[in-house]
Amino acid sequence: MGTVIVDVMPKQEILDPQGQAVAGALARLGLGRFTDVRQGKRFTLTVEEEVTEEVLAAAREAAETLLSNPVIEDVVSVRAQQDVDSVRAAEDAR
Amino acid sequence: MGTVIVDVMPKQEILDPQGQAVAGALARLGLGRFTDVRQGKRFTLTVEEEVTEEVLAAAREAAETLLSNPVIEDVVSVRAQQDVDSVRAAEDAR
Repeated sequence: MGTVIVDVMPKQEILDPQGQAVAGALARLGLGRFTDVRQGKRFTLTVEEEVTEEVLAAAREAAETLLSNPVIEDVVSVRAQQDVDSVRAAEDAR
Repeated sequence: MGTVIVDVMPKQEILDPQGQAVAGALARLGLGRFTDVRQGKRFTLTVEEEVTEEVLAAAREAAETLLSNPVIEDVVSVRAQQDVDSVRAAEDAR
């Protein structure tokens, strides 16, 4: 069984009122060092099989057609969970 | 200037109606291989300075207090953008 992670963010040139509201709230909480906040979406897609190149291609199709609105959002990444995990473990070991 | 990425996902034991709606729509689009979908949030926080351990600690505080609802959500990761990028480049080079 495998998991694919899809990250979607509002395009850079698009106003992000959710993110701006968060930035304002952070400033009021004394965390004003964060000058800009943008809020996007993160999806985990579970498949019964292993995550192959074919599964990633299907996930990319899902990301472009259903998980994001291409007018206002970018698909930032489509990755297998085990890659994310192994890479993070390596990073933490440094 | 640095960027911190915060990932927040609904807890495993919490029903995720948004994710279920996406899973249903994927099945109707012929992408029924994805048996389970969960939808969470991804934030990018921009700081003027470099991303130090202190900045990450502030981002963790923001993630726990404002960016997530600890009753129903988990903060999955709080990472500097440059770490994510360098690690992905290394992974792609494999």
